[in-house]
Amino acid sequence: MSNHLLLALDFGGTKLSAAVLAQGESDWRDQRRVFSPHDGDGKYDLETMLNMAEALLGDETPAAIGVSFGGPVDFERGVVRLSHHVPGWENVPLRKILEDHFGAPAAVDNDANVGALGEQRYGAGKGTPHMLYVTVSTGVGGGWILNGQPWRGWQGMAGEIGHTMVDPNGPPCLCGNRGCVERLASGPYMAQDAAQRLETGDNGKGAILRRLAEGNLQAITGKMLSEAAALGDELAQETLKRGAAALGAGIANAANLVNPQKVVLGGGVTKAGDLWWTTLRQTVERVTMPEVDVELLPAALGDDAPLWGAVALAEIGD
Amino acid sequence: MSNHLLLALDFGGTKLSAAVLAQGESDWRDQRRVFSPHDGDGKYDLETMLNMAEALLGDETPAAIGVSFGGPVDFERGVVRLSHHVPGWENVPLRKILEDHFGAPAAVDNDANVGALGEQRYGAGKGTPHMLYVTVSTGVGGGWILNGQPWRGWQGMAGEIGHTMVDPNGPPCLCGNRGCVERLASGPYMAQDAAQRLETGDNGKGAILRRLAEGNLQAITGKMLSEAAALGDELAQETLKRGAAALGAGIANAANLVNPQKVVLGGGVTKAGDLWWTTLRQTVERVTMPEVDVELLPAALGDDAPLWGAVALAEIGD
Repeated sequence: MSNHLLLALDFGGTKLSAAVLAQGESDWRDQRRVFSPHDGDGKYDLETMLNMAEALLGDETPAAIGVSFGGPVDFERGVVRLSHHVPGWENVPLRKILEDHFGAPAAVDNDANVGALGEQRYGAGKGTPHMLYVTVSTGVGGGWILNGQPWRGWQGMAGEIGHTMVDPNGPPCLCGNRGCVERLASGPYMAQDAAQRLETGDNGKGAILRRLAEGNLQAITGKMLSEAAALGDELAQETLKRGAAALGAGIANAANLVNPQKVVLGGGVTKAGDLWWTTLRQTVERVTMPEVDVELLPAALGDDAPLWGAVALAEIGD
Repeated sequence: MSNHLLLALDFGGTKLSAAVLAQGESDWRDQRRVFSPHDGDGKYDLETMLNMAEALLGDETPAAIGVSFGGPVDFERGVVRLSHHVPGWENVPLRKILEDHFGAPAAVDNDANVGALGEQRYGAGKGTPHMLYVTVSTGVGGGWILNGQPWRGWQGMAGEIGHTMVDPNGPPCLCGNRGCVERLASGPYMAQDAAQRLETGDNGKGAILRRLAEGNLQAITGKMLSEAAALGDELAQETLKRGAAALGAGIANAANLVNPQKVVLGGGVTKAGDLWWTTLRQTVERVTMPEVDVELLPAALGDDAPLWGAVALAEIGD
């Protein structure tokens, strides 16, 4: 019998993290993290994770296991549907594999739902029973907590704020729709839009951004946009504002529809600076109804949100 | 002691309805309905309703009272915030008034939430634990049922699909925003948009609509648009399609965000015909993610949805 160790696992797409926590404590007992190789696959990820977890647990058995997975998950069945980053994750029964391997109950959910749970139990959403967690980085994802519990929808697809439509005349998105929040507000898409404007010349705007990219427009990143914007680059500022306004409209629509108390925002793009946050807040204020109040907060747990959420998921179980 | 009579009341803005049901039965024991006078006020509505209810109850005491109100309600406190149609409803503690008058527990909610409950318990949403009810008539409102219970949000403002934004370049709405679903899809706004196009000539389109309105463009209604569209009027068809597409985008956004199993649609505009429904379904199909499925259904209870919802509300209590 263990002393109630919880095992938290985060399959992050580009990195794998594992940690153990003694129930009731507020600091990891131990934690490990490795980057996935570029030519890795699901089998490699899984073996690496199992090895890390065994090393963390020593000869102890966990009381419960919580897992965050960076891709769509069938929570009810505990099955990973696929990874958008790593091949070989199609229909992997991850919950059963872990339960068989460690002899403990496991729960597996996607990173947005798990991140929401982490922020609500241990982060910026502490004490808020009704909140939306939005992660804005290479994609735009979301997870709901309603009445203190994850809200997943009837197919486990709830929270897809990234593919809500905020402009019928917006640019086409990979999902087949136009003007999706993700198409307008994610880091890589904003970078691509800025590069495209630089290519066409655009009245000589964007000199700072061009210099930061050392002339290689394909090398422009979301982070570079923020740096250029902070240095006064008008084209970078306009691109960030367009993205923040699209995200703000999506969040305001969610607030009008579901009326959560807080929206907690994580992911790299939320570090884009004051201009981005100000535009976001102003848009949300304008598009929400006068009677609808919602507080926007930056995430508090940073890269550890999935692991802390995995702890909460292990505590709740399935 | 009564034989478990439930009293259902519907303050509908233009009409007042009351009905009594013996618990467990599926038909009204008795029902009454009157139209509100044009110069009425809250005090008159309330007295009329109390008289109707007393006549229905005879000397019996109801076991519980459920109330649908056509305007914003503070459900937790049982207080009507206001009516957009009838003056004198500001901050009326309707629950307490009814409980004191009839000596029975009462629950009061707005018509969209109550309609959602009615359709979910007794109408098109029967057996569906997760659904959105949308009413499309003079306005566009919505009510959620999640896990079989009304979801009202932290301020009781959830369900405001009418003021979600689906076009940043759309026409200005009374709420201060642009391109709201209600501004594009409600009956009076569609009629107004068609009248405006007729005023400007619009390449001679809209002859049938103009004839139906007998040349009086201010007299155009949503119903007239449907008639003209069915007779082949191109301008009327385009207007209906624009409205249905805006509503479809709003519903698809709600489906991507919350992933309900069904969306039940009621209200006069849903009788606009095949063109409207086809456009709505096509838009929802296009804008929802490929993995998100949602069934669109016409409401089954018609004008009685609020009364049946009031019965369900009485059964649940507060």
